[in-house]
Amino acid sequence: MRFFLGLDGGGTKTACALCDEDGLIVGFSVGGPSNHLSLARGEEALREALRDVVEDAFSRAGIGRPRLSAACLALAGVGLDGRSPVAARVACEVVPADDIVLENDAVAALVGATAKDWGVVVISGTGSIAVGIDREGRRARAGGWGYLIGDEGSGYDIGRRGLTAVARAHDGRGNYTILVEKALAHYRLDTLDGLRSVLYRSETKAKDIASFAPLVVAAACEGDAASVDILQTAGRELGLSAVAVVKALGLEDEEFDVAPCGSVFKAGQLVVGPFRSELLRAAPSARIVSPRFPAVIGALMIALRRSGRVVDGAVLSNMARGCLECGLPVGDVGEATCEGKD
Amino acid sequence: MRFFLGLDGGGTKTACALCDEDGLIVGFSVGGPSNHLSLARGEEALREALRDVVEDAFSRAGIGRPRLSAACLALAGVGLDGRSPVAARVACEVVPADDIVLENDAVAALVGATAKDWGVVVISGTGSIAVGIDREGRRARAGGWGYLIGDEGSGYDIGRRGLTAVARAHDGRGNYTILVEKALAHYRLDTLDGLRSVLYRSETKAKDIASFAPLVVAAACEGDAASVDILQTAGRELGLSAVAVVKALGLEDEEFDVAPCGSVFKAGQLVVGPFRSELLRAAPSARIVSPRFPAVIGALMIALRRSGRVVDGAVLSNMARGCLECGLPVGDVGEATCEGKD
Repeated sequence: MRFFLGLDGGGTKTACALCDEDGLIVGFSVGGPSNHLSLARGEEALREALRDVVEDAFSRAGIGRPRLSAACLALAGVGLDGRSPVAARVACEVVPADDIVLENDAVAALVGATAKDWGVVVISGTGSIAVGIDREGRRARAGGWGYLIGDEGSGYDIGRRGLTAVARAHDGRGNYTILVEKALAHYRLDTLDGLRSVLYRSETKAKDIASFAPLVVAAACEGDAASVDILQTAGRELGLSAVAVVKALGLEDEEFDVAPCGSVFKAGQLVVGPFRSELLRAAPSARIVSPRFPAVIGALMIALRRSGRVVDGAVLSNMARGCLECGLPVGDVGEATCEGKD
Repeated sequence: MRFFLGLDGGGTKTACALCDEDGLIVGFSVGGPSNHLSLARGEEALREALRDVVEDAFSRAGIGRPRLSAACLALAGVGLDGRSPVAARVACEVVPADDIVLENDAVAALVGATAKDWGVVVISGTGSIAVGIDREGRRARAGGWGYLIGDEGSGYDIGRRGLTAVARAHDGRGNYTILVEKALAHYRLDTLDGLRSVLYRSETKAKDIASFAPLVVAAACEGDAASVDILQTAGRELGLSAVAVVKALGLEDEEFDVAPCGSVFKAGQLVVGPFRSELLRAAPSARIVSPRFPAVIGALMIALRRSGRVVDGAVLSNMARGCLECGLPVGDVGEATCEGKD
């Protein structure tokens, strides 16, 4: 029996899955962060993180430590061209495989979410990015510039706009919003004068700001005009990033899948509505699909295909079963489309 | 002869001036930062910074070390109400004065810039803030929320919007702007793909981003539409912060001075024009005045007034002479109004 490895490594955690040639998942593990660009000790930290999570996956699989036919490591610190000398060196040391593919993590997210080898993915969590691949394998990205100058439509962006609305309302530069009350409660403050010291004394600023995004969603659900506007703007921005990818690849007149992934889309129609409008205006035949598999399974698919294995319906249903057993989120394996949760 | 001390302490540097009861400046010195809220060792660092700069001013003055009649310490880490237990404790230890006034640094900037004890100041450098004082001494502020959720119209805001325009143009989410070429040259990059690592590997992020603002000004002068829009938006935002202060103090129908201070206003009409329009719409009798004295001289004025000394024309011209001798910037001592530099 041949075995394959898929790995999805980001700034927060790393997931690793092993499967056989029929797509049956035999081992799964989750470890610490593995973006070597953001880790203090860089290459050394990446080596440790990958070694730990891969060893863990092997020991859970109970298949010994066979040499793998192929492995795909999808890492946040790898460019869209799959190149990273550091990650390539570490991967060869840590993963015992005949063939190792390095990928950007968004590419694995795209393959997993669409269960295809081409299409568009728009990811919006703390940060945001859109990545597309066409039938010929050409790639394009938009967004992903980080919280300082980009990440439009992300949780960070939504949180920042929410807190800015609070500051403006407090000064009298902007209209009142119930976000003022929500900010006071969230940060456990008596007055907003304490907000500066709360925000600027912390180290993990981007995540702190993003943690305010769910309160913007809650306020929007209560009808707060400022919050509704922030979420609709986020949706449009995410749509714009998808459109930029579509245009770069010349997909305007094609039928293709677009998978919206990440926590921000869980806000539902307030985000998904403007996202869809913006996208369909430029690409009327685009299909917005609910994400089917997580990125770690996308990485497995890439590894299987690399070794010549066709990822057919039988493989996909084995993978779906494996995901359920491992507690991994898995969408409808049919041709479901996502209209957002209202 | 009685002597007075004025001090202006911020996150970058601290200026200290000594004068006699006629406003003649006898000693002046500049030292390191003294915002105890942003310094790593807080109170201890504040004590050292104040002691150094005060001792330096005394030794340059050559007046020995007489007990001062009054001193005003205007510090970035002090609230608009002049309260700060830490700063008060340190000031009493370090400054030998019969009377010590603590102030927010923007209040000293207001008094120095207008050479009056009431009016409005709008400061826009790396960050931005507006502060107003009415005839009765009531105070209001707007802005000053820092780079994460505020600082609209600041050098940081202008730099961030400029770099965001670069990222959007690169992705195809926005129109082309000559800021793309300027960013490549400024950061010495062959392609914009390197921009992320340049921006996120650095420690002093707000200042780094603000350092791109002069390039936005340069691009606007070359007619770049995106840059012109960014500067006009900044001007409007700074006008809005002034208006918020005006409304909080009920100054809409009064004649009063508004002093625009800080490097952003040096961009000229592109910023000052929208700033003036926004301000005059709410307060048609407001007078936009060119800043007359720096904040450290404003602190001296507060100290003189505290001891009962009237800051009259004779005192002001002595101060102006002293500023020229110390190499301090000093504006027209007449009733000049600032229409911005074109």
